[in-house]
Amino acid sequence: MTIDLTALEEITISSPSKIVMLVIDGLGGLPDRQTGKTELEAAFTPQLDSLASSAACGLVEPIGPGITPGSGPAHLALFGYDPTKFSIGRGVLEALGIGFELMENDIAARGNFCTVDSNGVITDRRAGRINTEKCAELCSLLNQIRLSGVELFVRPVKEHRFMLVLRGEGLSPDLNDTDPQKTGMVPYNASPRSAASASTAEIVDAFIEEAKKILRDHHPANMVLLRGFSRLPDIPPMTKIYKLKPAGIAKYPMYKGLARLVGMEIYSTNGDFEEEIRVMADRYNQHDFFYVHVKETDSAGEDGNFEQKVKVLEQIDRALPKLLALKPDVLVITGDHSTPALMKGHSWHPVPILISSPWCRHRGTKGFSESYCASGELGRISALDVMPLAMAHALKLNKFGA
Amino acid sequence: MTIDLTALEEITISSPSKIVMLVIDGLGGLPDRQTGKTELEAAFTPQLDSLASSAACGLVEPIGPGITPGSGPAHLALFGYDPTKFSIGRGVLEALGIGFELMENDIAARGNFCTVDSNGVITDRRAGRINTEKCAELCSLLNQIRLSGVELFVRPVKEHRFMLVLRGEGLSPDLNDTDPQKTGMVPYNASPRSAASASTAEIVDAFIEEAKKILRDHHPANMVLLRGFSRLPDIPPMTKIYKLKPAGIAKYPMYKGLARLVGMEIYSTNGDFEEEIRVMADRYNQHDFFYVHVKETDSAGEDGNFEQKVKVLEQIDRALPKLLALKPDVLVITGDHSTPALMKGHSWHPVPILISSPWCRHRGTKGFSESYCASGELGRISALDVMPLAMAHALKLNKFGA
Repeated sequence: MTIDLTALEEITISSPSKIVMLVIDGLGGLPDRQTGKTELEAAFTPQLDSLASSAACGLVEPIGPGITPGSGPAHLALFGYDPTKFSIGRGVLEALGIGFELMENDIAARGNFCTVDSNGVITDRRAGRINTEKCAELCSLLNQIRLSGVELFVRPVKEHRFMLVLRGEGLSPDLNDTDPQKTGMVPYNASPRSAASASTAEIVDAFIEEAKKILRDHHPANMVLLRGFSRLPDIPPMTKIYKLKPAGIAKYPMYKGLARLVGMEIYSTNGDFEEEIRVMADRYNQHDFFYVHVKETDSAGEDGNFEQKVKVLEQIDRALPKLLALKPDVLVITGDHSTPALMKGHSWHPVPILISSPWCRHRGTKGFSESYCASGELGRISALDVMPLAMAHALKLNKFGA
Repeated sequence: MTIDLTALEEITISSPSKIVMLVIDGLGGLPDRQTGKTELEAAFTPQLDSLASSAACGLVEPIGPGITPGSGPAHLALFGYDPTKFSIGRGVLEALGIGFELMENDIAARGNFCTVDSNGVITDRRAGRINTEKCAELCSLLNQIRLSGVELFVRPVKEHRFMLVLRGEGLSPDLNDTDPQKTGMVPYNASPRSAASASTAEIVDAFIEEAKKILRDHHPANMVLLRGFSRLPDIPPMTKIYKLKPAGIAKYPMYKGLARLVGMEIYSTNGDFEEEIRVMADRYNQHDFFYVHVKETDSAGEDGNFEQKVKVLEQIDRALPKLLALKPDVLVITGDHSTPALMKGHSWHPVPILISSPWCRHRGTKGFSESYCASGELGRISALDVMPLAMAHALKLNKFGA
C-alpha cells in the first residue's frame, strides 16, 4: 500500500529543515569470488560505518525484485516518481545525456548512423561503430538541413549514436521507429501512430531523405535510423509535490537533466565529491533539499574494475566530514541501483541505504554494507518510499487522514 | 502483492475458531535518549515476551514507509480496508468521535465556532478556544434551528469544535468547505461541487444564516465555519467479507464508531483493559472475532509521558492471563500506529505485531519489542495483511485458485 503523489502532496509541508540525498551511482555490488566481500565491504569507510551505526538502514529495491533499472527510471523512483507511470523516452534520455536543454514541446529521437547497400538494405546497424569524432563531423553536416516549419538539432552522442530534436508547432512524438532493429531490411518510414502525428511523420521522412543525400558518399555511415521519438514527460515538479526548494549537484549531463526534469535548480561542477560539497556549502541557505550525485562508482563497476570502485568509495568516505559539518537535518545515502564490478553493468540487486536523523529508531547497524543493511530497521523498501521517509524524518509530512 | 476484498471474500470460510485482535493504540515508540530503550522495551512485560517467544512476530507499516496515519485510516487498514480507497471524511470522523449514530444518508460536517468583525471578516478561526461547556451551550441554541425538509443535529465536540449533521432526502456531501482556513477573509458560502449538491448547499447556507443571527451577541463565538462534508463510506461489512460475527470492545467513541462502520457489534465499557476482557468473556460464545481497543498508551504518548506509557503497557501485560484463559485460537496483538512519547504525537514508525496460534512457524523472538519484532518471522508487513494472516492462522481461508 502506498499513497499516490496527489495524496502525498496533500500532506507535505514546507519547513526550514534540510535534507541531503547523496546518490552514489551503482553503489550496490557483489562479493569478490576470492575474498567474499563486496566493493562496499572491501572499502575502508569509517565515516559511513559510524553514520550507519546510529542511522536507519535498509535495502532499496529500485524497481522491484529482479528488475535491473536504467539510470532514468532508477533516479525517477528515488525522487518519488513511479517509473512505471512516468516514462522517459529513449530520445529524451539521449538529449538529457548530452546536456541538450529540451523545451516543453520538443520531439527528441535517438539516432544511429548505419550502413546500407546499393538497394538501401541495412548491412550494419552501427556503421562499423564509427568513432565519436567522425560522428560529430557528420552531425554538423546533418545539422545544416533546413525544413520548413520546424527547427532541427542534430547532436553527436558517442560512436555511431546521435540525437535528433525537432522544435516547432503542432509536433507529436506518436511515431513508430524507423529502425527495424535488424540487418537485411530497408529502414521503415516514420509511420504515424495517430492522426495527430501524421505531419510530424512527414517532417521526419523529409529529414531522412535529406540525410540520405548528404551521407551518400560517407560509407560506412551512409544512412540514419531513428527510434524512441519522445517528449519531456509531464512530471509534477518536486517544488509542487514536496513543497521543497530542491537543488541538484552533479557532474554528468544525464543526471543534471534528470534533476532538472523534476524541477531542481542545477549546479554544475567538474570536480569530485569534495568539490560538490563545496558547491552545496555555497548554496546551503538557498535550498532545503540537495541531491548530490557521484558517478565514478558506477563507471568503475561498468569497467569491471573492483579496486577502482573500492577506491572511489574510500574517497567519498574521506570527504564525508565536510558534508556532515553542514549538519543537514536528514542525510540519505544510497545508490540508484547496483553496478557490481563482477557483472560489468547495472544489476537488479537491492541497494544499501542509510537515513541519518534524530527521529530514527536508532537501531543502527554495525556498518554500511549490503549485508549489514539487510538487517537494518528500514527492512527492504521500494525506491518510491525513500522520499516519503526522508520527508518524514525531516518532519515535513502531516498526518494522513484524521 | 495483495488480493482485493472481492477475491478475499471468495476464499473466506466460517468456522468455530476464534480470533482476538488486541489493538494497543500508539503501541510503537522511540528510544529514550538516555536509556536507548523504547516504551515497550522499558516496560516489564513478561507475558507479552513469553507470547512473542512462540508467536509469529513482525513489524506493521500502517499505511506505508514514512506515512503517519490518523486513527481512522490506521484502523481501517488493520480491519483489512485499504484507507487509500475507503476514506472517512472529517465530518464523519467527528460524528464517530462523539458517538453520534450516523445513518446511511446523513451528511456530517466538522464545525468551528469562530470570531468575525463587524464586516464579517474572520479574526479568529477558533473563537479564542471557548471552553467545552460554552460550546455545548451554543450548540443547544443552534440545535433549535428548523429548516424545511431536513432534520438537523448540532452537537458539541471540544472547545470551539462541534458537529453538524443533516438528515433528509436527496442530500449530497459534495460541497466545498465554508472555512477558508485563514483569518482576514469572509467565510465562503457552501458551494456545490456538482449539480446533485446544489440544494444541499442552499440548506447549509440557510443554516449558517440562522446560526449567524443566533450567535450575533455571543462574541467571541459569533459565527460558524464548516468543513469536511461527508457521508458514511460505503464499506462492505466484515460479516460479508470475512463471514465473521465480529465484536468491538472499546471505551472511546471514535473507536466504537470505526468498529460499527465495518459491521462489528459494539460493546461499550468505561473500565480498563481488565474490564474489557470481562466484557469479552461474557460475550465469548456469541462471536468469533473480537477487536479490543486500549487507548491509554496513545494518550500517554501524545502527552509525551514516557513513564505513563510504560505503566499502561505493564498493566496490559498483567491483565493478559485473563485473556489467555479464554484460549482464543488466534491472538493478534499490535497497534494502529506508533505514538512515541518523544514526539508527543502519532509517527510513521512501524508497529510491533505478534500473532499467536498453533499454526505459526514458531521461530518466535526473544521478546515483544520494536527491535525483536524487526527480525521476526513475519518480516515487515502492511496493515492490510493483518486480517488475512489472522484468518489464515484461524484456518478460515480456503486456497486461492486451484
